[in-house]
Amino acid sequence: MARRTPRLDLPDTTRVEMFSDGVLAIVITLLVIEVRPPEHDDGELFTELVHQWPAYLGYLTSFIYVGVIWLNHHAAFRRIRYLDRGLNFANLGVLATTAFLPFPTAVLAEAMADATTEDQRIAVALYGAVASLMCASWLGLYHYLARSPRLHMDDGDRRFFHGERIRAVAGIAAYGLAVALAWLLDPIVSLLVLFAIPVFYAVTSEGWGEPIRRRRSVETDGTSR
Amino acid sequence: MARRTPRLDLPDTTRVEMFSDGVLAIVITLLVIEVRPPEHDDGELFTELVHQWPAYLGYLTSFIYVGVIWLNHHAAFRRIRYLDRGLNFANLGVLATTAFLPFPTAVLAEAMADATTEDQRIAVALYGAVASLMCASWLGLYHYLARSPRLHMDDGDRRFFHGERIRAVAGIAAYGLAVALAWLLDPIVSLLVLFAIPVFYAVTSEGWGEPIRRRRSVETDGTSR
Amino acid sequence: MARRTPRLDLPDTTRVEMFSDGVLAIVITLLVIEVRPPEHDDGELFTELVHQWPAYLGYLTSFIYVGVIWLNHHAAFRRIRYLDRGLNFANLGVLATTAFLPFPTAVLAEAMADATTEDQRIAVALYGAVASLMCASWLGLYHYLARSPRLHMDDGDRRFFHGERIRAVAGIAAYGLAVALAWLLDPIVSLLVLFAIPVFYAVTSEGWGEPIRRRRSVETDGTSR
Amino acid sequence: MARRTPRLDLPDTTRVEMFSDGVLAIVITLLVIEVRPPEHDDGELFTELVHQWPAYLGYLTSFIYVGVIWLNHHAAFRRIRYLDRGLNFANLGVLATTAFLPFPTAVLAEAMADATTEDQRIAVALYGAVASLMCASWLGLYHYLARSPRLHMDDGDRRFFHGERIRAVAGIAAYGLAVALAWLLDPIVSLLVLFAIPVFYAVTSEGWGEPIRRRRSVETDGTSR
Repeated sequence: MARRTPRLDLPDTTRVEMFSDGVLAIVITLLVIEVRPPEHDDGELFTELVHQWPAYLGYLTSFIYVGVIWLNHHAAFRRIRYLDRGLNFANLGVLATTAFLPFPTAVLAEAMADATTEDQRIAVALYGAVASLMCASWLGLYHYLARSPRLHMDDGDRRFFHGERIRAVAGIAAYGLAVALAWLLDPIVSLLVLFAIPVFYAVTSEGWGEPIRRRRSVETDGTSR
Repeated sequence: MARRTPRLDLPDTTRVEMFSDGVLAIVITLLVIEVRPPEHDDGELFTELVHQWPAYLGYLTSFIYVGVIWLNHHAAFRRIRYLDRGLNFANLGVLATTAFLPFPTAVLAEAMADATTEDQRIAVALYGAVASLMCASWLGLYHYLARSPRLHMDDGDRRFFHGERIRAVAGIAAYGLAVALAWLLDPIVSLLVLFAIPVFYAVTSEGWGEPIRRRRSVETDGTSR
Repeated sequence: MARRTPRLDLPDTTRVEMFSDGVLAIVITLLVIEVRPPEHDDGELFTELVHQWPAYLGYLTSFIYVGVIWLNHHAAFRRIRYLDRGLNFANLGVLATTAFLPFPTAVLAEAMADATTEDQRIAVALYGAVASLMCASWLGLYHYLARSPRLHMDDGDRRFFHGERIRAVAGIAAYGLAVALAWLLDPIVSLLVLFAIPVFYAVTSEGWGEPIRRRRSVETDGTSR
Repeated sequence: MARRTPRLDLPDTTRVEMFSDGVLAIVITLLVIEVRPPEHDDGELFTELVHQWPAYLGYLTSFIYVGVIWLNHHAAFRRIRYLDRGLNFANLGVLATTAFLPFPTAVLAEAMADATTEDQRIAVALYGAVASLMCASWLGLYHYLARSPRLHMDDGDRRFFHGERIRAVAGIAAYGLAVALAWLLDPIVSLLVLFAIPVFYAVTSEGWGEPIRRRRSVETDGTSR
């Protein structure tokens, strides 16, 4: 594989990783704030704790989702060696859509518990729209990286980011499917698709159609990062 | 001791440590949000401040617990040299159960202040169930590490993670005991056990049945991490 | 360019960058807390979601602003090699004004939705005053750095910080203009100026009137930072 | 000065600094949550904004205080080279008392605005007690470090930590004085002392009675940390 010479005019990615880790750590931790001790009459604590099972499911689902986003972020950035302005903006796009995710999640959870089928469809559509935006922000990041070989190390990385774009497009299609199913069948069916997508991303978090890639920066210059 | 050759195809643990530190720092800091200035009539501030002593005790206990979890995390990861997908998921399991802990803590604190003995038993059982899940997530992490010698450095580390599994199992047993005591004796007795467990983990945070271990990665390659 | 010898008596900037990244990551993430699921009657979810569009706009605007502040912070600190007490205080000033920004933003958003034109002018003035203070804190940071050559590497960095002072003064002038327009014309006109300023800072985040600068610390000593 | 040989059996302080930075960054950022847009009648926004000046003062004071604590933490840890269990617990003590500080601050702010002189004395006493605990936690940290030469580099560091104990004791005495003045004179007089103490710590944050110290770890082994 063609090996590129080090770039001396661009900063490395340490700080953007620290900042991104901070944002994702806060998003994932704030999720528990939505789970509150229930009001209850004497002797009714058990019943009330069971009654709020959707809150526990929501915590679990959101935690898996943000955890998977962190894994994808980690898998992408360990292939990135230098940082430029375009990568900074692409990364801020990913963070902005991820940090917004708790809002449609809360709308969807409340709608599934209490609302009419029509409003549940609206909630699924809102969730699908925001999640598609998030996939689109990843598509933008991968596309930028596939076209910026100077930011990573060799042609294998370029192919990796090329392939990752397929995962992002697959996500947009899957969220479109979930919204369509809410109108064609039932919002409950959409939920199954919405929960399956993070699992898909978890299973493929190390890349699409390739064995686990090596981290060249460690082996080539011995710095500890 | 057998020394393994460096792995060049796996990333190191810097970012997973940054992310975990972020999550644990946020969990430990959000605890003070539960302690609020009390409503009070003129001249009653002192009385009302004393009256909410359980909130201070809860802050102290939770701070010790999350602090100890951080110590355990630190003790484990300074023996880990490389990161793979399984370790990522095991670590996310630890973070998910730890970040959820404020919920059963709040339920227990409210129940001990105001609820019937029956509801207090439910609250102890909830706390014990979540805390056991947390111990089980540590068991999963230690078990995975004990079977993944390629992620650490030598056979001493393997033995360390082997031994740590005992600590995790001991925690599950102790929380089971605490729940049993709530039904057999009184929820107050359970509290004593619940408070003793973090102290046990603090005292044994550097390992079980072994002197303080050396950090080989420092001495062998001189990088500063 | 004159090259300065390494300073051995001053710490590097790793920790102040970690601390600043933490503060900015928290500020940017807490913004979504202001966006809440709307109360709604049956069948009215879509209408209510559309009705709270100012909240989405506020999230987007604030996210861009704090993101740009992070970019500026990053661009400044990768030119800084050592840390002294004055730099610490200048940096704390930047963080203090940035962390305060959510308050005038919320006042302005509420005023634009519901208040009289007179109160909207007050809200614009408050926002302009706080944002000018923030620009003044950047002016202080850049001025300190322009006069402290021992903290960075060569005369190019000194010229960079010299030039950056112009950007900070331009911000103060622009916020003054926005406040004046609220009285002379209409608060809506002020909003356009307020939204244009972060865009200006984003476009110029790599420096004012110079091509992208090289990061000398990487090329000269090979440390990984 | 006597130079000690490197210790190979103790971890370095990277992670405890990351964790501490996270905790302090969150504490300092959450302060703005207490400052809320005021309720107001038409045309009364300016009046209401002015009316809540104690909230702005509280934000400023708390920000300075936590910022100074971070400076002290930074000044201490750049003299520390290795980490052991005792240092971990001493550091957790500092973090626990710092993260608790927002509570007495809120009690004091509310009491100064609305309460009787008697309750204001109670609030000053609460603040003084918590702040003295915080100084005591720093005393514990400095004392431990002064007696643990194996954790730092040379005799100069030992003398530094020796001297720092005086600063911690001075803080405890000053907070005792502030509480006494609340009873002997007036709680307003106590406020002046309470606000003067962080300024004292800021001015002396690089050490007590010595010129700015050099960071030996940089000059001796050239690692970048």
